[in-house]
Amino acid sequence: MNLIPIDDPKDPRVAAYLDIRERDLVGRHGRFVAEGKVVLDLLLSSGRFAAESALILENRLAGVQEILRKAPPEFPVYVAASEVMDRIAGFHMHRGILAIGMRGDPVPAEILVETLPRRALAVVLVGISNHDNMGAIFRNAAAFGADAVLLDQTCCDPLYRKAIRVSVGAALKVPFAAFGDTGTFTATLDRLGFGQFALSPGGNVDIRAAERSARLALYLGTEGEGLPRDLLARLQTVRIAMAEGFDSLNVAAASAIALHHFSMASDPQNDPTSRVAATL
Amino acid sequence: MNLIPIDDPKDPRVAAYLDIRERDLVGRHGRFVAEGKVVLDLLLSSGRFAAESALILENRLAGVQEILRKAPPEFPVYVAASEVMDRIAGFHMHRGILAIGMRGDPVPAEILVETLPRRALAVVLVGISNHDNMGAIFRNAAAFGADAVLLDQTCCDPLYRKAIRVSVGAALKVPFAAFGDTGTFTATLDRLGFGQFALSPGGNVDIRAAERSARLALYLGTEGEGLPRDLLARLQTVRIAMAEGFDSLNVAAASAIALHHFSMASDPQNDPTSRVAATL
Repeated sequence: MNLIPIDDPKDPRVAAYLDIRERDLVGRHGRFVAEGKVVLDLLLSSGRFAAESALILENRLAGVQEILRKAPPEFPVYVAASEVMDRIAGFHMHRGILAIGMRGDPVPAEILVETLPRRALAVVLVGISNHDNMGAIFRNAAAFGADAVLLDQTCCDPLYRKAIRVSVGAALKVPFAAFGDTGTFTATLDRLGFGQFALSPGGNVDIRAAERSARLALYLGTEGEGLPRDLLARLQTVRIAMAEGFDSLNVAAASAIALHHFSMASDPQNDPTSRVAATL
Repeated sequence: MNLIPIDDPKDPRVAAYLDIRERDLVGRHGRFVAEGKVVLDLLLSSGRFAAESALILENRLAGVQEILRKAPPEFPVYVAASEVMDRIAGFHMHRGILAIGMRGDPVPAEILVETLPRRALAVVLVGISNHDNMGAIFRNAAAFGADAVLLDQTCCDPLYRKAIRVSVGAALKVPFAAFGDTGTFTATLDRLGFGQFALSPGGNVDIRAAERSARLALYLGTEGEGLPRDLLARLQTVRIAMAEGFDSLNVAAASAIALHHFSMASDPQNDPTSRVAATL
């Protein structure tokens, strides 16, 4: 392992880690910050993004040794004491595990969807601008085996540090790409044989009655505005039935229900003849 | 409406609002802080908790007038300019809508469950210590018509300001109560005819095959530890099927899926003979 002690917070070798909180939103020359043990593990093992380096608090090194061995032997692992690390990051890093990943060249959504298998579940996000929701949707997408997440131009960045953290690393695993015009992209999915459902509180069909097609695209919009009207007019709309008087569901919770419904991780037990009663 | 201008941040009439961020966790003599328009509305309209007063930023007053009319005419509405309000709250209150609610005498969980109807859905939480998760679970409980949330001694406070906010006010609507020993409480639910399911990643039954009984209790545990082993050994356990290689689901997302499954807000369309295909 290529361990490199860092004593000076201004050491140019750790420049990519400087003031990570403040610089989060302005981009970092094609880089992103991964944080925490589980996320570091996914970065080094999923292979979707190249890792540039890691910065580890000295007393956390033993705990991540196994994970760091997944990187090539020359992979730089910067090691710092708590005070130095806090001054690099710009705030108190109690977790003490950071890494820099490389974004690589973005693949257009139109190309990504071309490469999906005959049986595929794609999540299409329109206007998801909250990083917690973005991260949670990616976590659900990974949990239920979605093959890709496609984002319109108004979505926030899934590789923002907090989005990656909330996703528990799923943003580093599930392929994603951005598209331009939503109408054009819908036509592309149609041409590729994707059945398309738009999730909406006023949807025509209860999601429990929505049939899974081999290739399926599920559209999710913001909580406030919802999906654009012209899009809802063109697609089959599905709703999640709720109790009267409190029909309010977080978009990430809605994605969990919808992706679970359409998931390929289906269990053959989902058969009314084999229902199981509760403990009584 | 009883509008009372406040010019001095140290005015004793607004003492309950002082430094709300710092004092959040230490309790406030039987009070809680409600924040934001939707939460204020639920506080004044659900009737579950008494409201003591409101503190409104002067330029937000017009926007909440309709809501404030739901309170009795003598209900004190303190009105402050931005600078005064920030100094009272101890940080910048860009929303500018606060209220104080009264907790009232806590009802033991054993009493609350006695009062539930013949057909009832109860959520039993064990060790949910994160306020975001607590709020999100309450939001899902309200969305899917759960009749009560029952909490063990290690759960965090649903009336913590952030939990209320994340719940979009559901913590002020869905009845909740705390119980002591989990084993004893399980026996109480059993005696009252509740079927009981424990949600667990290693559960025996896929949740889609889990049958709804008229009275049903759904147990949810922490993400890390999960539900205690002795509890899992006594109850019928259900799992949410996930994709291989990323079997990680947030407890609030899991609650959304499970409550949607058991929800009484069922739609008759959930019938395989009436399945609806996607737009193609």
